[in-house]
Amino acid sequence: MRQEHERTGEFGEHAIFQRLRTIMRNAGLEALVALSPDNVTYTAGFLVPTHATNRFRRTISILAGDRFATQIVVGVEERLAKANSRFSDVRAYHQFREDPIDLLGEALTEAGVAGGRIGIELDYMPALDFVRLRERLPQAELVPCKDLYFSTRMIKTADEIATLRRVGELTERVIRDVAGEIRAGMTELDVAKLVVSGMLEGESTSFKYRVGSGPNSSIINCGTTSRQLSQGDIIRIEVLGDLENYRSNVTRTLVLGTPTLDQRRLFERLVSARRDCEVAIHPGAPVAAVYKRYLENCRSGGIEPSITFLGHGIGLTVHEEPYITAERETVFEENMTFTMEPLHVVPGEFGLHVEDMFVVTRSGFERITGDGFDGDSLIEVG
Amino acid sequence: MRQEHERTGEFGEHAIFQRLRTIMRNAGLEALVALSPDNVTYTAGFLVPTHATNRFRRTISILAGDRFATQIVVGVEERLAKANSRFSDVRAYHQFREDPIDLLGEALTEAGVAGGRIGIELDYMPALDFVRLRERLPQAELVPCKDLYFSTRMIKTADEIATLRRVGELTERVIRDVAGEIRAGMTELDVAKLVVSGMLEGESTSFKYRVGSGPNSSIINCGTTSRQLSQGDIIRIEVLGDLENYRSNVTRTLVLGTPTLDQRRLFERLVSARRDCEVAIHPGAPVAAVYKRYLENCRSGGIEPSITFLGHGIGLTVHEEPYITAERETVFEENMTFTMEPLHVVPGEFGLHVEDMFVVTRSGFERITGDGFDGDSLIEVG
Repeated sequence: MRQEHERTGEFGEHAIFQRLRTIMRNAGLEALVALSPDNVTYTAGFLVPTHATNRFRRTISILAGDRFATQIVVGVEERLAKANSRFSDVRAYHQFREDPIDLLGEALTEAGVAGGRIGIELDYMPALDFVRLRERLPQAELVPCKDLYFSTRMIKTADEIATLRRVGELTERVIRDVAGEIRAGMTELDVAKLVVSGMLEGESTSFKYRVGSGPNSSIINCGTTSRQLSQGDIIRIEVLGDLENYRSNVTRTLVLGTPTLDQRRLFERLVSARRDCEVAIHPGAPVAAVYKRYLENCRSGGIEPSITFLGHGIGLTVHEEPYITAERETVFEENMTFTMEPLHVVPGEFGLHVEDMFVVTRSGFERITGDGFDGDSLIEVG
Repeated sequence: MRQEHERTGEFGEHAIFQRLRTIMRNAGLEALVALSPDNVTYTAGFLVPTHATNRFRRTISILAGDRFATQIVVGVEERLAKANSRFSDVRAYHQFREDPIDLLGEALTEAGVAGGRIGIELDYMPALDFVRLRERLPQAELVPCKDLYFSTRMIKTADEIATLRRVGELTERVIRDVAGEIRAGMTELDVAKLVVSGMLEGESTSFKYRVGSGPNSSIINCGTTSRQLSQGDIIRIEVLGDLENYRSNVTRTLVLGTPTLDQRRLFERLVSARRDCEVAIHPGAPVAAVYKRYLENCRSGGIEPSITFLGHGIGLTVHEEPYITAERETVFEENMTFTMEPLHVVPGEFGLHVEDMFVVTRSGFERITGDGFDGDSLIEVG
């Protein structure tokens, strides 16, 4: 655990500010500007509520030089941001009369970097905002910073890992409890109600979930419907929980009654392919090698995964780096958190899927979920 | 009701495609490209599930000329999109190996508009995507189309209004039922559980909600906490429901026991200001005039609203045009749907808020919500 990340810095700054200033300097940048809900939340330690739901309410975080730190929020969220953000300097704009990009330009000028090299989320910032900022700061060099943010966020602090454990464990426990209550005749929505009730009990309030039964379980991102459960149904429950803006992602595949021999065999293949990958996880292992191992293991057993990755990083967003896939050059490092989710669907018939959260340790890995209520075999319910 | 919008067109196209092609031509554009979850969903009649939750999975809709219609989705969503989208031509990209902007460039070239005037969501499209598309199509003129989309979406079809009525009525009924069950000693999360259970019962599955009690009710976009309700608490319940991707937004303010005289008076001011505005709503009335009326009415009663608008359009997004505010030049038209939500908070003490949905008719307006369980006075519960 990197306890040092929680330390207070030279200027009494939060450890996350310090990390970001360090990567900023190392990349030869004079400022770092975030606009996406996940990167602003990472920086500010607080999600401005409507940032995630109203795309016209821009929220921006700015770090520049050694000390400059400012957050820009829409007026209606000013009081809440001032009470909760890590930024002591929060500036609000009028939603209808002011353009937040003008406030951004002014802040960068005030920070003395109007002609500098500025890392900014050009993979998120709308094109019109980009054009406007260039007009405001014609001397500035605007540089993409997606990889800087993601490479920082990949390595979690001890606090982040503790929160991910809490939300992961809650999610696993809720799915276990729900599994015990499932009966034939219930609908997918009835099952969802149990999930929701359990998550709220655990004070997770912005979670998402998918309950897919029978043929619906074969739809990768299925909706939850009023379909009634009957004997023999495969039931896929995926829960994406949240605590303090950190996410969980746990999936279990259940069967009402007993699975067919075919279902059992396919599922065992998936699970054994994942188990085989687990032993390959340690600092220094390339994610692409783990994915290759997974693919080979599946294919040697005559099964083709239904998605092009074995898993994905998890933190402030359900999907983040590192993706465990052939196309990434990322190498596992201590304190990375991620999921592994073997998934195989037979379209129109059923879907088999198990997903757990993991953390890379100094010498290998630990499960965040999957110890208390593992999904290593199809869970028979009813 | 504009029944004609539901008609099938010359080429058997959906009415929404026809509307969009018409505004495209009228604006002198050869193509119309959407990238935001709301505008793509409006066009395709279907929300690609991870479009709303994973910002790296671009989803794009393209209409060009009289017949060209294509949707671009990430591979993992291909099957679902092909089954549900209005677009019969759905093209998938590999999330890690292909750039969706390259597919967009190819589609526009195939449509014969690579050198044309293309309306595209530059208020949403990330700057790097914009730069890449300009490189791919150096002859194209890329023109913002935010207002085109919003002015079209403001005027709802009969189908859209019917769906908004269903989700509005469900939401109002759920809040009414929940109000009947609130007792001292319950927590905000207990109240949320009742809300959630009712919404799921009504097959709304992607709703959001806020339950703020006591001082929490004074936080405009509050979270829902484990705070226990006690006698005299103001309880603000806001529910943002969904059915078939259309949203509701209904808020009621309750009091556990009886309100203070001050609370009662303030609330009556808010409600009477809104009632005074209702009579001013009819086709041809400027939204700014209605807002002015609201503000004057409030201020003459010695009350200052806590937000800078009286209400907002509602449809595929909870907030859309028309905002009822001083800065908008929009004029009410038949079949616009919107909310009015007087809101006044006393920071740290309590918040008073009532929100309902309305539709502009040929000669005036109708309430979508607020007839069955109106919020015209503080609702005493417990």
